Amino acid sequence: MAPSTRERRTQPRLIVHTGDGKGKSTAAFGLGLRGWAQGWSIGVYQFVKSGKWATGERAAYAALADRHRTTGEGGPIEWHTMGAGWTWLRATEGLDQAELAREGWRHVADALAEQTHDLVILDEFTYPLANGWLEVDDVLATLAARPGTQHVVITGRRAPQALLDAADLITEMTKITHPFDQGARGQAGIEW
Amino acid sequence: MAPSTRERRTQPRLIVHTGDGKGKSTAAFGLGLRGWAQGWSIGVYQFVKSGKWATGERAAYAALADRHRTTGEGGPIEWHTMGAGWTWLRATEGLDQAELAREGWRHVADALAEQTHDLVILDEFTYPLANGWLEVDDVLATLAARPGTQHVVITGRRAPQALLDAADLITEMTKITHPFDQGARGQAGIEW
Repeated sequence: MAPSTRERRTQPRLIVHTGDGKGKSTAAFGLGLRGWAQGWSIGVYQFVKSGKWATGERAAYAALADRHRTTGEGGPIEWHTMGAGWTWLRATEGLDQAELAREGWRHVADALAEQTHDLVILDEFTYPLANGWLEVDDVLATLAARPGTQHVVITGRRAPQALLDAADLITEMTKITHPFDQGARGQAGIEW
Repeated sequence: MAPSTRERRTQPRLIVHTGDGKGKSTAAFGLGLRGWAQGWSIGVYQFVKSGKWATGERAAYAALADRHRTTGEGGPIEWHTMGAGWTWLRATEGLDQAELAREGWRHVADALAEQTHDLVILDEFTYPLANGWLEVDDVLATLAARPGTQHVVITGRRAPQALLDAADLITEMTKITHPFDQGARGQAGIEW
């Protein structure tokens, strides 16, 4: 039997933004605005090195989270970043990138099992997968087994084929023209 | 002589998000979060028909604009949409899509001349261009002549080649897998 409209509309989505172009993370954070407006709980986990922390988006999300706390509008937002060490760890010194990635993924897996968020943004999560720090099969099994209607957005280059095969929606961002090619430098407000 | 770092960093960018995939507008609104965090004035002009109003993003931007008004954090945001009739027009009944598009562009051109905003998002602006409602050459001349360091982001499918030629940065969003192809319906928080 065909699923009902309600069933179709509450299908949990696994969304991947990949490719060499810009806009992968930016589109994920833009998508989060929709979820926020729906009153969703949003969890952001950035699997990035220091210096790529999306400080502008984070400041805006912090303002939206505060809006929710003070007025009830929108939804709550948690933002965690591997770059500075996961916030739930007491000590992250001495841990290397791979260990931090595995610790981050354990936390995400727990959050998925507990249905902590309605939308989970795993920013630059393709890197620990592509680098072999995490087992792709294990990650995909955990994602496939997530209960409820939790949406997950994964961003980053070099998305493993198995992840693409598992995704409900993939957008590839392709660079056509980029001023960096002509020697221009990044600038505040545009690149971060 | 090579431009200084400061000169390179303040180059006004003309950015185009095009292609048949998702994320064109979403990435533009995500980019706006960075500008907001920089304290920029942001102007959003949606050249869309009713029903494609990005209500979630608009609600989030309204909350951020309010944050700026009440705390000084971030920058101001103006949001105008053609779909409900431009807000600065007293009467928009009886105007057709082409007339509304031309009226909207006149307002954008004035805002550019007056340097009203630091970042201007022309959402779905490729449609009035592709539909012949606006003269591409006229629009490009106005954009090229804009004073200061105003950044402009244009989104939409079917971007005219002349616009692509003039752009500093183009990202093409390509659909690889999309659940609509399998009969799924759009859902709140994800598609709007």
